[in-house]
Amino acid sequence: MENGRTERILDALIELLATRGPDALSIRNVAAVAGVSVGAVQHHFGTKEQLLQAAMGEVEQRFRTRIGALLEQEPSPQSRLRAFCVEIAGLGNDDTTEVVVWTVFAARAAVDEGIRTHHVSSWAHTEDVLRALIESAYPDSREDAGDSAALLLAVLDGIAVSRAAERGSRLSQVRGVRILDRALTSLE
Amino acid sequence: MENGRTERILDALIELLATRGPDALSIRNVAAVAGVSVGAVQHHFGTKEQLLQAAMGEVEQRFRTRIGALLEQEPSPQSRLRAFCVEIAGLGNDDTTEVVVWTVFAARAAVDEGIRTHHVSSWAHTEDVLRALIESAYPDSREDAGDSAALLLAVLDGIAVSRAAERGSRLSQVRGVRILDRALTSLE
Repeated sequence: MENGRTERILDALIELLATRGPDALSIRNVAAVAGVSVGAVQHHFGTKEQLLQAAMGEVEQRFRTRIGALLEQEPSPQSRLRAFCVEIAGLGNDDTTEVVVWTVFAARAAVDEGIRTHHVSSWAHTEDVLRALIESAYPDSREDAGDSAALLLAVLDGIAVSRAAERGSRLSQVRGVRILDRALTSLE
Repeated sequence: MENGRTERILDALIELLATRGPDALSIRNVAAVAGVSVGAVQHHFGTKEQLLQAAMGEVEQRFRTRIGALLEQEPSPQSRLRAFCVEIAGLGNDDTTEVVVWTVFAARAAVDEGIRTHHVSSWAHTEDVLRALIESAYPDSREDAGDSAALLLAVLDGIAVSRAAERGSRLSQVRGVRILDRALTSLE
């Protein structure tokens, strides 16, 4: 019961962030969307800052669980790298929830030191993972793998922000994947 | 006098967005930072939505004025393209105001249709400008200039978001410029 309720609260947090942004992230709104009492939300998360941190941690954990399962299915280092990139860039499907939440967190990190600390460590980790995937996929590349990872991550973040903020009007899924494949080709 | 007051209100709007985000963008806060009366702010901008739209328009106009002057000084199509990219990516200096404000707008566009309409048209225009600069700098490129522009704009947006949200901890100005130059080299 307790776990189910925590899960519902976290779902509500993410839904509110993805549809209405951090302005809407009040204890009262979260309780209403989750269908639980205000007291239940307060019991788990006391402040708006704690709500945001919890949502950030949850989105990250869900992403890692999903990407871990996806990468296991890929047959080669090249296809693992591509699958990871597709997910980070928000090109895996038409659901913009995750890229919207990431964009909202990035903007929050820009003006809030607590969120920034979390964001900085999360993005440093993502660049490290990307670097390892690049080194494994293209061990003979003459380019510096660290800079390759930073450049590729910029491409992925740029596509993700566009998917979130422009909702596919400039970068459709098809065009986004084509752009990504061009960036990956330049690593060969 | 009237012009000076509008200018002060717009400066206050941008300062508040860049330091505290849209949450802090109340008529009262803007009046306090601008050193004008609440009535004066209300006279120009009635709602929070109108404050945000005004800030967005102002940041864009300042950017275009500055970039126009910068591009005029550049001696070649290649150096004009590079100068434009440096500015969009927020790599021209250590002042993060502009990239923070853009990131905040992008996140807002993700959850607010009015802001999204503005953002979509602004980013479509930026891609068009970038495409024209690429065609002028590399007229013999075999790549599709539209896709080149979309890929390059993703790189610029990715760098800008990182500069805003991570404040240079992963992409310093030096590393950011190195990454950008690598993206530009692949256009040749």
